[in-house]
Amino acid sequence: MSDQPIAVFDSGLGGLTVVRAIGRHLPGETIVYFGDTARVPYGSKSQQTILQFSEQNCQFLLQFDPKLIVVACNTASALALRDLESRVSVPLVGVIEPGASEAVFRARGGPIAVLATEATVASGAYLKAIQRLSPRTSVMQRRCPSLVPLIEEGRSASDPILRMLAAEYLEDVRPLNPAVVLLGCTHYPLVQEAIAELMPGAEVVDSADATARQIKTMLAAEGNLSGRTTGGRLRCYVSDNPQRFREVGARFLGSAYGGIRDVAWVTPEQFFHESVASGSFVQQSF
Amino acid sequence: MSDQPIAVFDSGLGGLTVVRAIGRHLPGETIVYFGDTARVPYGSKSQQTILQFSEQNCQFLLQFDPKLIVVACNTASALALRDLESRVSVPLVGVIEPGASEAVFRARGGPIAVLATEATVASGAYLKAIQRLSPRTSVMQRRCPSLVPLIEEGRSASDPILRMLAAEYLEDVRPLNPAVVLLGCTHYPLVQEAIAELMPGAEVVDSADATARQIKTMLAAEGNLSGRTTGGRLRCYVSDNPQRFREVGARFLGSAYGGIRDVAWVTPEQFFHESVASGSFVQQSF
Repeated sequence: MSDQPIAVFDSGLGGLTVVRAIGRHLPGETIVYFGDTARVPYGSKSQQTILQFSEQNCQFLLQFDPKLIVVACNTASALALRDLESRVSVPLVGVIEPGASEAVFRARGGPIAVLATEATVASGAYLKAIQRLSPRTSVMQRRCPSLVPLIEEGRSASDPILRMLAAEYLEDVRPLNPAVVLLGCTHYPLVQEAIAELMPGAEVVDSADATARQIKTMLAAEGNLSGRTTGGRLRCYVSDNPQRFREVGARFLGSAYGGIRDVAWVTPEQFFHESVASGSFVQQSF
Repeated sequence: MSDQPIAVFDSGLGGLTVVRAIGRHLPGETIVYFGDTARVPYGSKSQQTILQFSEQNCQFLLQFDPKLIVVACNTASALALRDLESRVSVPLVGVIEPGASEAVFRARGGPIAVLATEATVASGAYLKAIQRLSPRTSVMQRRCPSLVPLIEEGRSASDPILRMLAAEYLEDVRPLNPAVVLLGCTHYPLVQEAIAELMPGAEVVDSADATARQIKTMLAAEGNLSGRTTGGRLRCYVSDNPQRFREVGARFLGSAYGGIRDVAWVTPEQFFHESVASGSFVQQSF
């Protein structure tokens, strides 16, 4: 048993959909969440920058002595997870492989369409993860750069502009006749219904639930689950705009872990620079 | 006469529409442009963060010994210009006051609608600037958070989704029956036609041309114009993704200063930290 927290980071607030799923499977755990809202989004940025930001985020979270760090951002999972693993001393869990595995399971050999950010699509991470599991599966990716801002504006699955945009993005993958549409960005589950209605022959799958199950499996295997099975708490840190995080984030988190209560504003970038300068807090491998 | 460069910064590539206007009025000048593409956008972030980023950007640009720094980002002009002025030793020019002045001139006493980012609207900067010039003018602001990503996707004024979104945003300001719609974000001029068609009774005005004229006036008054009247050059620096900057930026810059040729990738944030640490390059007032 371990009462160390599970640490989670995301480029902003989308990772709260992953926390919501963790809450369903592991309601007794303590979660420490960091949202990099000063530098959000990551989806239009380069691998080098995404890796640098992700390293700083991990560095910040290590001060809480977590038993695990969840990279709850699809873009960071796609572009930084492999490099982070060699630099961070605690186990890391990304969302790409659980999501790919879930999609392959649900597709039963049928084609899979992946909707994701520019950077995730360019990395081909979902493509490779799916084809490692099932080399014969047909996969097609589509970048959907403007879905995130429309969702953050508060638009729901029934919003006509959002539906028109989603329909346009889906048009490109329609010829594949997908058995599964995989939502490769933590924001998209908020408009899952629109995608399901626009692609009635396909099952819509996201990575959050599969990631939460993988976390549970890993912790159980190492005897590291919390002793408690209810009453877990969530502490949130953001690099900007705690008020906006609280307001917009509520739609992403729902009532998991009692909702967003305390949100603290920190700048992990300063933290990173200061800790490097002072020599404190630097992992061996950095 | 001065052959020092004019420095320009923006949160990303939108400021190239301002450079384009400077090119029309001052085609012989040397321009050094910095686009903070690693941390773009600024429009959804807090004043504290926007000020911190803007200071770092100025710090980076000061190494080129500019005769003037243009804050070509509406959000940074709205939220950081006043504080920057007390911390940076060269003259600064923002886009808010020139834009407000142009709007008041064109509106001839009629109502003005301002379209801008979340942060610019929340600051009320255009509202105050217009009412300082003309206290009786009716002004209404509307935040348009998803126009920027749709424009960066490459959508033009004729794109049906972009038009539907713009129509929705304009719906809120329609009761004002505006004489002028002021484009309070450097991206919006790319879809000016759509806005003009959706609001046929109003003149659509942006800040770029008025800002360029103000720069010319200021330099002329101090005898600091370049000795050359043609053949000016543009050097670009970005904090991320030079390739994407070059590709998407071309639509914003047009053929001004011979287009985007050299783009260098720099991290002014590191630069800032290093220069603070070494004691070099720090302005007196920092």
